[in-house]
Amino acid sequence: MAQKLKIIPLGGLDEIGKNLTVLEYGRDMIIVDCGVGFPEEDMYGVDLVIPDFTYLTQNAKKLRGMFITHGHEDHIGSIPYCMQQVSCPIHGTAMTNGLIRLKLEEHRLTDQVKLVTHKPGDVVHAGCFTVEFIHVNHSIADAVAFAIHTPIGTVIMTGDFKIDPTATGGMTNLTRLGELGNQGVLALLADSTNVERQGYTPSESVVTESLDRQFKNCNERIIVTTFASNMHRIQAILAIAHRYGRKVAVAGRSMENMLKVAQELGYIKVPAGTIVDLGATKSLPKNKVVIVSTGSQGENMSALYRMAFSMHKQIDIVGGDRIIISASAIPGNEKAVSKIINELYRKGADVVYEKSEGLHVSGHACQEELKIIHALCKPKFFIPVHGEQRHLQLHGRLATQMGVPAKHVCIAEIGNVIELSAKTCKLTGSVPAGKVFVDGTGVGDVGAVVLRDRKHLAQDGMIVVCVNISSQDGSVITGPDIITRGFIYVKESEELMEELRNVAMEAIERCHRKRIRDWTSVKSAIKSDLSGYLFKTTKRNPMILPVIMEI
Amino acid sequence: MAQKLKIIPLGGLDEIGKNLTVLEYGRDMIIVDCGVGFPEEDMYGVDLVIPDFTYLTQNAKKLRGMFITHGHEDHIGSIPYCMQQVSCPIHGTAMTNGLIRLKLEEHRLTDQVKLVTHKPGDVVHAGCFTVEFIHVNHSIADAVAFAIHTPIGTVIMTGDFKIDPTATGGMTNLTRLGELGNQGVLALLADSTNVERQGYTPSESVVTESLDRQFKNCNERIIVTTFASNMHRIQAILAIAHRYGRKVAVAGRSMENMLKVAQELGYIKVPAGTIVDLGATKSLPKNKVVIVSTGSQGENMSALYRMAFSMHKQIDIVGGDRIIISASAIPGNEKAVSKIINELYRKGADVVYEKSEGLHVSGHACQEELKIIHALCKPKFFIPVHGEQRHLQLHGRLATQMGVPAKHVCIAEIGNVIELSAKTCKLTGSVPAGKVFVDGTGVGDVGAVVLRDRKHLAQDGMIVVCVNISSQDGSVITGPDIITRGFIYVKESEELMEELRNVAMEAIERCHRKRIRDWTSVKSAIKSDLSGYLFKTTKRNPMILPVIMEI
Repeated sequence: MAQKLKIIPLGGLDEIGKNLTVLEYGRDMIIVDCGVGFPEEDMYGVDLVIPDFTYLTQNAKKLRGMFITHGHEDHIGSIPYCMQQVSCPIHGTAMTNGLIRLKLEEHRLTDQVKLVTHKPGDVVHAGCFTVEFIHVNHSIADAVAFAIHTPIGTVIMTGDFKIDPTATGGMTNLTRLGELGNQGVLALLADSTNVERQGYTPSESVVTESLDRQFKNCNERIIVTTFASNMHRIQAILAIAHRYGRKVAVAGRSMENMLKVAQELGYIKVPAGTIVDLGATKSLPKNKVVIVSTGSQGENMSALYRMAFSMHKQIDIVGGDRIIISASAIPGNEKAVSKIINELYRKGADVVYEKSEGLHVSGHACQEELKIIHALCKPKFFIPVHGEQRHLQLHGRLATQMGVPAKHVCIAEIGNVIELSAKTCKLTGSVPAGKVFVDGTGVGDVGAVVLRDRKHLAQDGMIVVCVNISSQDGSVITGPDIITRGFIYVKESEELMEELRNVAMEAIERCHRKRIRDWTSVKSAIKSDLSGYLFKTTKRNPMILPVIMEI
Repeated sequence: MAQKLKIIPLGGLDEIGKNLTVLEYGRDMIIVDCGVGFPEEDMYGVDLVIPDFTYLTQNAKKLRGMFITHGHEDHIGSIPYCMQQVSCPIHGTAMTNGLIRLKLEEHRLTDQVKLVTHKPGDVVHAGCFTVEFIHVNHSIADAVAFAIHTPIGTVIMTGDFKIDPTATGGMTNLTRLGELGNQGVLALLADSTNVERQGYTPSESVVTESLDRQFKNCNERIIVTTFASNMHRIQAILAIAHRYGRKVAVAGRSMENMLKVAQELGYIKVPAGTIVDLGATKSLPKNKVVIVSTGSQGENMSALYRMAFSMHKQIDIVGGDRIIISASAIPGNEKAVSKIINELYRKGADVVYEKSEGLHVSGHACQEELKIIHALCKPKFFIPVHGEQRHLQLHGRLATQMGVPAKHVCIAEIGNVIELSAKTCKLTGSVPAGKVFVDGTGVGDVGAVVLRDRKHLAQDGMIVVCVNISSQDGSVITGPDIITRGFIYVKESEELMEELRNVAMEAIERCHRKRIRDWTSVKSAIKSDLSGYLFKTTKRNPMILPVIMEI
């Protein structure tokens, strides 16, 4: 009996980000993408969210390679964490590998990880899999889709993509996708990010034209902020600046790093003499200066943030500065971006940020583009990926409109095992999967309990009750002392503090009278009396931490 | 010499919400609106933000009345807090006063506050001020603008408004605004919320048509969520439901309360037999049911939230349910709304929420409508209100386009005193103003220090170090004990806990050896050693709370 192909998403379903998909056949396994997610509002103090790698470590011997579609964080960000647990070569394009290398250097993993660089059209053998690199358009250079040829058929994974007929470097390779479709595609896994949007995503060239309009006839300093990874756009800014006789300076570390990588790899061509140091812009006339800055998402302490809040060492925003926000806010970042815009306005700057100005386009395919991909690939089975539940469901409906039978659409959850034969597609079980939190240097040592406590502390603060109790007769020796943080302004609440001490003392003495000598019960009594009293008087619920020391 | 008119905004500038403006002339003072703001992300545990009432209490004797433009929270929400500190009659329209009454009942203030009800066209004398009620369109019934006739000229305050030529109850009274403009307007204070948007805000009738389209030919249960206060829309839903032979049930307390007030005051007409109990919908065929629900902003534990997460006692979402979100997410609520939509999709519901579907329109005037108001009022001075800095700046620019000289545009901050004579407008000083936090029943007892601690606790949790020290020789009697919350999963970190104990012990003993007996210094040593150690090993920075008890 023929083996089944297993497709196991460990991230990227029911969430935006943290993309990681496993393909397994017999004794061979490959991974496609290895991204991070960003913490939700209620994940207090968490820096990054990475996939659970348990299934990978359990099957480390099968691992034949990791394939990366493009260099965005949600596709490469977990690589260092993954590579600390398993080992295999990583295959990507030049730009993608350049960005992965930066990451490996940061984690001091360069020596132990093998990075293999390919071009679109290349084919890589990894165990029983043959992986073909196919050029696609996205908001980062050198993005690819994969056609993964397996013993039971071809699986196409689009990665993040759009169809941009006027893109630098050429349009997504629809021809090759069509050829594969004609040869027969077993399953398609496609980007669902923009499936809610009708029509087409506009071309990057629209942004180039808009930027040109903003530069034309502007006699002031221009500051442009955009995603550091969008080198096509940075290239356009450099070209436009050159056309209008402006010098370009770069502000922000990630922008500097990206530019360095892109220049080294030849992905960006800087017109001679165009780039200058940030400091050098001060001595130039205003209308000869462009600053390209990080901070398009309102990031705390990014270059634009520091400029807006007068915390930047070299650049002060002055009245008349034209500030172009060539990006849209990722959901959750709206308020942060808005705060920066307000500060820039307060300083008299002219801020251009309206969608209607055409200053940004998405990197993801809208409905009509998705339909083209479905029409070309004609997959037998369809698995929507890269999306929250609503995106997956809507993409499933789009697939059925395009002719995939509803029962051939597989909406999975992370950890699901999708088993494919040449004729069937079933969810057959599940493997460990979930969100692993990175906090500081700790990976996985912050979980639900810690987060619940952080939330509790964030809401109402805490009260520590310290008391020394005699080990001989259970009487109070010193205390109880009440210490609070994040609860109330103590200096103006002395009466309440005194009252809390009385309530705690009363609880301890009641236990003493009842001859309760088990400290857990005494602590419960203190907690319960104090929280009851506090809720009655303040409607608040701080964390109460009784500390009993026996003398 | 003639007195000057003082206009003092105590809220609503540089922020969305918390609207409160003081007008003062000689010995008379009135207040327009008295709203709440909602806490920003970093205001951990804060329930509401209200204005600083210091200036009102300092001038309580001058207070001749409070005038309310409409019944939204950001215009009435602070009334109970204000009325606990000062006393004056409150003037509003019937619907507005109905909603204020609910609020006063909740705070048990009904007996001590005098509510006076007026109709558009009414004129109220309050000290030297004569306040005229002018009908405007907004997303709540019975909204008004005020023309405030003062001894030195007329001030027009639009409140929140739009111009809807096909509105239930008639269009904003442009005629009266034009008459006042012809007679001469000293100053205009106008709504800046939508000044970034070009063109016109569509009419509420567009939503009515869209809703009708969604009901037509739908054979499933329909659940509509919208703002509870938008009675015109609820009225439309009732009428459409009736037309298609559906019964309507209401889910969510605020929706029930609003409906009750609106019905009592005759602002809503319920077709006979249309409204049924929520429980009764179960026995009706699916295509005979509409549920109107709260939760359009993704509010935690709102009716729609509970339905989506299977926590509602009476309603389970089933496959095919058509759920119409007739609202757009207020900035900051996007993710909460998105979570609900995902859950509804997961249950197989058909969720309709796209802007392109015309299921919601804003309640605020866009650029072309604002221009009409400027052209009608022809104010000598212009003060943009209801907006963040960027809205105020852009509205200022719009005013200059409409002919107000740039130096007659006054962009103020809360607490600024804007002094007007018949010919001049100047910022002449400032009064106490700011954000007062309401947390539980506490008003103002949570401030910057408490919030800073909550933020710190939220990020990395805390470590309590307890130790008993001999008062005779400063030696350690018991401890140090280490207790953590929200820091790390303790059971898997025993080694680290042991190490922390050692670091703390070493700090205490070092102090002992150096004969340091001042406990503040010992605590500093413990804190500094522990935080240094923790940052080195974990890159985290929990709050460290040393507790020394002297025996």
